[in-house]
Amino acid sequence: RKRKEAKLIKQLEKQKQLEAAQRETAEKIQVKNGRPYTVSVALPGSVLDNAQSAELRTYLAGQIARACVVFCVDEIIVFDEQGEDVKSVEGEFTGVGKKGQACIQLARILQYLECPQYLRKWFFPKHQDLQYAGLATPLDSPHHMRIDEESEYREGLVLDRPSKQGKGSLVNCGMRKDVRIDKQLQSGLRVTVKLNKNQNQESKTYHGVVVAPHVPRTEGGLYWGYSVRLASCLSAVFTEGPYKEGYDLTIGTSERGNDMDQSSLSPFKHLLVVFGGLQGLEASLDVDQNLNVTDPRFLFDVYLNTCPGQGSRTIRTEEAILISMSGLRQKITAAFTDVSEGS
Amino acid sequence: RKRKEAKLIKQLEKQKQLEAAQRETAEKIQVKNGRPYTVSVALPGSVLDNAQSAELRTYLAGQIARACVVFCVDEIIVFDEQGEDVKSVEGEFTGVGKKGQACIQLARILQYLECPQYLRKWFFPKHQDLQYAGLATPLDSPHHMRIDEESEYREGLVLDRPSKQGKGSLVNCGMRKDVRIDKQLQSGLRVTVKLNKNQNQESKTYHGVVVAPHVPRTEGGLYWGYSVRLASCLSAVFTEGPYKEGYDLTIGTSERGNDMDQSSLSPFKHLLVVFGGLQGLEASLDVDQNLNVTDPRFLFDVYLNTCPGQGSRTIRTEEAILISMSGLRQKITAAFTDVSEGS
Ligand SMILES: C[S@@+](CC[C@H](N)C(=O)[O-])C[C@H]1O[C@@H](n2cnc3c(N)ncnc32)[C@H](O)[C@@H]1O
Ligand SMILES: C[S@@+](CC[C@H](N)C(=O)[O-])C[C@H]1O[C@@H](n2cnc3c(N)ncnc32)[C@H](O)[C@@H]1O
Repeated sequence: RKRKEAKLIKQLEKQKQLEAAQRETAEKIQVKNGRPYTVSVALPGSVLDNAQSAELRTYLAGQIARACVVFCVDEIIVFDEQGEDVKSVEGEFTGVGKKGQACIQLARILQYLECPQYLRKWFFPKHQDLQYAGLATPLDSPHHMRIDEESEYREGLVLDRPSKQGKGSLVNCGMRKDVRIDKQLQSGLRVTVKLNKNQNQESKTYHGVVVAPHVPRTEGGLYWGYSVRLASCLSAVFTEGPYKEGYDLTIGTSERGNDMDQSSLSPFKHLLVVFGGLQGLEASLDVDQNLNVTDPRFLFDVYLNTCPGQGSRTIRTEEAILISMSGLRQKITAAFTDVSEGS
Repeated sequence: RKRKEAKLIKQLEKQKQLEAAQRETAEKIQVKNGRPYTVSVALPGSVLDNAQSAELRTYLAGQIARACVVFCVDEIIVFDEQGEDVKSVEGEFTGVGKKGQACIQLARILQYLECPQYLRKWFFPKHQDLQYAGLATPLDSPHHMRIDEESEYREGLVLDRPSKQGKGSLVNCGMRKDVRIDKQLQSGLRVTVKLNKNQNQESKTYHGVVVAPHVPRTEGGLYWGYSVRLASCLSAVFTEGPYKEGYDLTIGTSERGNDMDQSSLSPFKHLLVVFGGLQGLEASLDVDQNLNVTDPRFLFDVYLNTCPGQGSRTIRTEEAILISMSGLRQKITAAFTDVSEGS
């Protein structure tokens, strides 16, 4: 019995050490300097149609969300490669089955998973697309805080509570008290809050200010989740981006791309990495009436084979994201390290 | 109507081009020179217990098989980190539930998926563990031939047909005719056959010779699937390997490892890459009574964080395999390129 107890204690200690180490890692993520650049990933919603059941569709969407979060992707663009919503009504009507509306379903699940758990019930009313969302692996990203976790920033929901003139709105940030912000905002909005350094423990509320959603990244160096954008075709991925300067480095991926081992990246502000679906980017190009090039490589600054010597005839999109981003991560790090060393 | 037809034709042409390109890729896999080294991957069977349903357990096993095949892994070792089969009978009996026997189930599914489709019915009688194997993504590796595909090598089953003294056995290689080999072998064996260059089209059989399973890799430079090994504990991963020289380069993986961007690999004969389960390699180490070190890093030649700056607090084992092997692939290529350039 003594030995058993000793073993238990040893295990508990190990557990604590592990947890401490995990916290440490989490803090390491929070590097001192902000990250000046963004990374966007685009893929066709049709990838969901590869899945063999409604459960596996959801799991697959979760795999994509996870892959993007692990590599700190700031924007996911789901594009239509089936001309689902072309403006004309010509063509055959295939009906709205389980297989339809892959783009919208993928986008919805991605948004749901990105939203901190404590805000989900407000932003995501029950929906059939989310029926199996519980099967997806949680993202566990830095902006998904537990109730008592301390953090400079938090995502919150502006509450519908009358507040006196001159006083700011109350925000639910998933903590034990609500947060009083500096501004009066419309209730129901999702906001990013920067909490004041010193909080009065006696006060009924915490205090903070509303900041732009990029601030945790640009000032805190934190990864702060991704936004989701729907694009009606491949070309809209490039033209409808949220950055006024546009994407200044675009990478296409294909087993017919150039060997990534032979290439390096130059620094960028807004990187876009585009993946194809079951039939590759060729198929996405084919249905896009705005694009007249014949080979997808002409659409991109760089066109890369990110897995030279692959042992399977074909790599799935969800696998290709992890594989490609892992290879690109090294090159991105190198691009920015070289620059800072040079200056 | 004419435009529709033209479009159809264009699509068919595209399809053909794609298929030609795919064949080309497949041929590229078949590099001229053999590959002299092997890569082994080890992971605890307990990873299956993360899955939320029997279907997802199978899907997860499939993800692991796929990750290993994409990176041309020659051996997968499934180790027990729960002391399931320790020699003593002390400890609580937890019963044989869905959660039990994760190691055996994972090994069985991995073996099943590795086996060319045309041989499965012989080697895998119906089994509960394989009930959902149809949900796993096919491996689509070079040794999974279609019936009319031409190939120097093929996997086959020695048939139970009497053959005259001096004549070799007949082997089913999944082709339209059986293959007469040079030796008389016991029926029911799985063998690797090298087909003769020139076949007499009139003959009732093809002709070939039996070769060791490593020959397609060492002489043909082909990826030829993986073998599966069960290890009763972490230390047995190292000590019970199939190579008489042992593994000459061992890599442990952990978010607490050294930044992989700062490390390079030297050439090796037999590489072993080890992954942990839900609780990391620390937990695997804890239950192993043969290992007295306190930190897993001491078990390996190199201990690597393969995803510095990860945007999720934790990376799942099945994700870590793709991420790590993608990063290591570049370093392995570099290790062997430098050598051949130097010589
Ligand atoms: C199922 S694959 C497409 C396969 C398709 N038969 C083709 O020939 O492109 C889906 C996507 O994964 C990515 N992908 C697959 N293999 C890749 C590789 N070796 N390098 C880079 N991206 C790859 C590409 O974005 C591709 O469009
Ligand atoms: C769920 S993780 C283990 C997490 C566990 N909490 C720990 O602290 O190690 C499962 C396995 O994935 C691999 N892994 C996870 N993150 C990794 C990283 N950044 N670098 C290398 N391997 C990693 C390791 O093999 C690890 O044992």
